[in-house]
Amino acid sequence: MHDGVAVLTDLFLIFLFARLGGELMARLHQPPVIGEILVGVLVGGHALNLVAESEVLIAVAQLGIVFLMFEVGLENRFSDLRRVGGTSAMVAASGVLAPFAAGYLFLHQLGHPSMESLFLGAAMVATSVGVTARVLGDLVMLRERESQVILGAAIIDDVLGLLVLAVVAGAARGELEIEHLSILVAMALFFVVFTATVGTRLMRRHGSLMDKIRLSDGPFAFGVLICLGFSALAGTIGLAAIVGAFLAGMVFAETREQFALEERIKPVTNFLTPYFFVLTGMAVDPAALMRPGVLAVGFGVFAIAVATKLVPCGLAARKLGRRGALIVGIGMVPRAEVGIIVASIGLAAGAIGSDVYGMIVLMSILTTLGVPPALRSLFRPRLPKGRLLEEDPAGGQPFGPPAPERFEESQVEIGHPREESP
Amino acid sequence: MHDGVAVLTDLFLIFLFARLGGELMARLHQPPVIGEILVGVLVGGHALNLVAESEVLIAVAQLGIVFLMFEVGLENRFSDLRRVGGTSAMVAASGVLAPFAAGYLFLHQLGHPSMESLFLGAAMVATSVGVTARVLGDLVMLRERESQVILGAAIIDDVLGLLVLAVVAGAARGELEIEHLSILVAMALFFVVFTATVGTRLMRRHGSLMDKIRLSDGPFAFGVLICLGFSALAGTIGLAAIVGAFLAGMVFAETREQFALEERIKPVTNFLTPYFFVLTGMAVDPAALMRPGVLAVGFGVFAIAVATKLVPCGLAARKLGRRGALIVGIGMVPRAEVGIIVASIGLAAGAIGSDVYGMIVLMSILTTLGVPPALRSLFRPRLPKGRLLEEDPAGGQPFGPPAPERFEESQVEIGHPREESP
Repeated sequence: MHDGVAVLTDLFLIFLFARLGGELMARLHQPPVIGEILVGVLVGGHALNLVAESEVLIAVAQLGIVFLMFEVGLENRFSDLRRVGGTSAMVAASGVLAPFAAGYLFLHQLGHPSMESLFLGAAMVATSVGVTARVLGDLVMLRERESQVILGAAIIDDVLGLLVLAVVAGAARGELEIEHLSILVAMALFFVVFTATVGTRLMRRHGSLMDKIRLSDGPFAFGVLICLGFSALAGTIGLAAIVGAFLAGMVFAETREQFALEERIKPVTNFLTPYFFVLTGMAVDPAALMRPGVLAVGFGVFAIAVATKLVPCGLAARKLGRRGALIVGIGMVPRAEVGIIVASIGLAAGAIGSDVYGMIVLMSILTTLGVPPALRSLFRPRLPKGRLLEEDPAGGQPFGPPAPERFEESQVEIGHPREESP
Repeated sequence: MHDGVAVLTDLFLIFLFARLGGELMARLHQPPVIGEILVGVLVGGHALNLVAESEVLIAVAQLGIVFLMFEVGLENRFSDLRRVGGTSAMVAASGVLAPFAAGYLFLHQLGHPSMESLFLGAAMVATSVGVTARVLGDLVMLRERESQVILGAAIIDDVLGLLVLAVVAGAARGELEIEHLSILVAMALFFVVFTATVGTRLMRRHGSLMDKIRLSDGPFAFGVLICLGFSALAGTIGLAAIVGAFLAGMVFAETREQFALEERIKPVTNFLTPYFFVLTGMAVDPAALMRPGVLAVGFGVFAIAVATKLVPCGLAARKLGRRGALIVGIGMVPRAEVGIIVASIGLAAGAIGSDVYGMIVLMSILTTLGVPPALRSLFRPRLPKGRLLEEDPAGGQPFGPPAPERFEESQVEIGHPREESP
């Protein structure tokens, strides 16, 4: 039982630190995830050394990110994807190629190995839609045209980003031959397409069978099962486990009006996900980042990360007008947890060093800061008079992991929160 | 990442087995927890050997039982305890002494060491109120006098049972001298009394401060924090971690109208707790139970476990009439998870052998089977006409971990399910 006590103490301390860091950031009107990462840097082995990584903590952190990606998937429907217009597709496509290519070339030019440069590129691909969606939701602007374009693009962007990650991670395992990589891409594509067609159809036609489960909370249990199963399957065939979790979430998104799975997955995510971000921070070695040149390169990476989303995505959305294009461009900038997930996979695989890992974390944090106030001020002219702008209305919950519209959350029956949406 | 995949695969398989076993039991009108344990026996190392225990699985299982005890605590208020009449106190007290003494003497007479006999006695003490409460709730009989007596007695019984466990577990660690044991009892009592007075008061007076938390789901996070913190603290001072979790739950129970923490803890419990019960089953060695004499002793233990609750608790409730006394007596019989938790602590401490462990698991399972139909048939004359009896109404959720009234669960807004209760 005494090992058990050590585990509980670690879990308690990390959760405490995470919430304190998150709370501080929330009060500074920034996303809590930034606070969780910074707290991790502070308490980790490279700084105060208050908690040490352990096998159990790593497993809990992995479970946290798997469930977070499942929750993100729950917000994204394949059927929405089909409905999304050409603008979203163009925004997404331009926002994938530019950062990947620029990130790779920049680091490779500076003499880093190809593998590291590839991972940096991959980490710069996917927008973290959570932060942007949260700000849009807080402003009750989710039904605006710009918001729809951003959300549509973010789904495509996530799928493409995960494909890039699948290839890069495969390469990191030494599967550099073209056959290996082709097989990997084929499997990834098959997984995505099969899930999108057969999985989605099965769920839409037969999802109501979940009502037949006699145990309490059958749909929740079925969701957990599919999430864990798809993650394990994705990992087994050589994709990242989170790809499976995300696809599992997308399948369940088809039935979200019916079962409101999100509301039940959220407590699990709220409990487990902070461990991932604190451990992410713990792996950052501030000293490595402070080595001559590294910090400068880090800021260069940050600048490229901003420019390669802002400009191409803004241009792709230029028909929305200058302000609209700017909203879309800025809305696509935050990388937050998505960049960090890629970095942690690269670090675990030994494909990137602690300097590049630190750069990616820095880039992810910096691209996330500042976006909320920028979006708020761009939407300001459209806000009805009297709506609080900088201050968070009702005193609660600015940001957090990707979440639905906050105002519904508190007012509508939790059992079926989506029924009111069109 | 490949260790990660192995962990995810194990978590997937165990969750799958657990749900299949639980579902089967639910269809047989028995508590799902029995199915989870039996599935564990089947897939564990002593039988099919489909999954192996690992450090991570043990940690997840421990987390599962910690959160389950927190959830049980959430159903029990110190303030209710004070309101409960003398009948509940008498029922509880008679239901603690008799099984402990009889269990100890029976096994000791048969030549087992004192320590094993003490653990068997301790495992026989606490009623698992979850099964009984679920049946009463399903019949919408929770406001009946017998139900109130049972629920009141179960709270006192849980507190006393955990005190007995604290002492026995202390003894198992070799702290057999009277000073050690006195210190342990004093600490346990101080912990309980301090939590019951100061903790409860703080929560009642200042619980609304949780609204000030800016992060999403502040009360949930605060609950998780206190649950983990109290568990680690209890473990550190030499009590079982679950004692701390249970007390943490009781403190939060004071604010349950306000925050409906239960509804948010439940998904976490639904996900994690099955791991505990499957691992419990995995530790059972059917061969050890089949050794000559062992099974006979096991059935003897079962008979004693039934008699020492049914007779003393029934007698203590005799003023409720013959049928009422029988309802109370039978309602107090199930040991389910509580007995098994004690057994797993004893096994981990090396205080009991695999034969006695098997006996306790057998006793816990057998005392739980049969109770639901017995209670249903005793309440039958009071049921309004037309209410289904054997069949589960609305086709869902018979049993499961301790849960509030099912009918409210599905009809009332989840956010504040308790507001309607008086």
